[in-house]
Amino acid sequence: MEKGVKLFKTWSSPFGIRIVWALKVKGVQFEQIDEDLVNKSPLLLLYNPVHKKIPVLVHDGKPVVESLIILEYIEGTWKQNPLFPEDPLERAAARFWAKFGDDKVMPSIWEAFIKGREEEECAFAPAFENLKFLEEELKGKQFFGGERIGIVDIAFGWLANLVPVFEEIHAIKMIDEERFPLLHAWMQEFSKAPVIADCRPPHEKLVNKFRAIRDQSLLAAAPHA
Amino acid sequence: MEKGVKLFKTWSSPFGIRIVWALKVKGVQFEQIDEDLVNKSPLLLLYNPVHKKIPVLVHDGKPVVESLIILEYIEGTWKQNPLFPEDPLERAAARFWAKFGDDKVMPSIWEAFIKGREEEECAFAPAFENLKFLEEELKGKQFFGGERIGIVDIAFGWLANLVPVFEEIHAIKMIDEERFPLLHAWMQEFSKAPVIADCRPPHEKLVNKFRAIRDQSLLAAAPHA
Repeated sequence: MEKGVKLFKTWSSPFGIRIVWALKVKGVQFEQIDEDLVNKSPLLLLYNPVHKKIPVLVHDGKPVVESLIILEYIEGTWKQNPLFPEDPLERAAARFWAKFGDDKVMPSIWEAFIKGREEEECAFAPAFENLKFLEEELKGKQFFGGERIGIVDIAFGWLANLVPVFEEIHAIKMIDEERFPLLHAWMQEFSKAPVIADCRPPHEKLVNKFRAIRDQSLLAAAPHA
Repeated sequence: MEKGVKLFKTWSSPFGIRIVWALKVKGVQFEQIDEDLVNKSPLLLLYNPVHKKIPVLVHDGKPVVESLIILEYIEGTWKQNPLFPEDPLERAAARFWAKFGDDKVMPSIWEAFIKGREEEECAFAPAFENLKFLEEELKGKQFFGGERIGIVDIAFGWLANLVPVFEEIHAIKMIDEERFPLLHAWMQEFSKAPVIADCRPPHEKLVNKFRAIRDQSLLAAAPHA
């Protein structure tokens, strides 16, 4: 059996980056394998035969898949620098917000980003409704995890990476000091935190990637001439 | 602060029933509050302001929501009769299958049930693709949890309750000895297990309820005269 930790990811997927951050916080040494999703490696298909998706964490030859489940596995396996609260009630709340992010916040922002017109803030109205819950949750706290970065911060880290990208492409403000002061401050603090700052994809490269995805999607949705 | 355990649920929701089963397996005393989802109680809206949905578990006055997260909370709070495996890798696998059930198996069966025509098994083809993974997972085991009922059994308990209902309404066979022998045997074993058998909604009442939902959905989808 092959020893060690490997992470199958891509350079830009928020689901992969959250695993990188968690392993770095824990101080776990690991090898990163960047997948080409157009031409997935035989190993990725072997390790995740059900969903055939990244991220996959392979620990001593055994795969774990689904990013939030991988985060639970990391917490259960490497106890140092806890990411989850100890208290069962707080732990349930952390799991709730992480799931809310993937189930509600992410799709609502993505929908507006892909379909909304430029300079049209109102396309983001449903997303703003979801973000209000996060703003509320941050009251009296520096991070979702309190004084230090926890699982909810890591799960929402994509906000700090991608919101500035979407703002630039759409020429609007989403999370600014006026609308979401706490979330805005959180994005700044999270982005520059040690470990996190070192493992963020380059902003310009993300802008190019997501601009291309959006252009392609708009083209596909346009009525034929 | 009010002491004790309360569960907000409905008589038929699979998400509520799985919490009933878990609490019964643990031997936790609790009060059940059946909600009318057309006229939700102020308490439900107070306890679950984000999703406004059942189930909600209220423990000593503090709410926990989202059924899979409630199951984690129950396991973390009452240690007797463990529902999750101890080993982090097996625990990750259990979480994976529970999530797969809610994300993939349930929607694929529901879609076929709502839109498929009677006696038309092929409508269930995508659902069968998902069920094949479960059949594979049951190889060499009586329950998903091994020799005893675990979290994956409880998460998939709705299959044992609802598949016979859908089979009757559609006049087809979905999970039978020929197509899915292990899953078929599991449904029998699970349904008659102590604790589980005592807390299943009556079959005829479920048939009436789901027949009405389907009729209404077909009517709404029909072209207008």
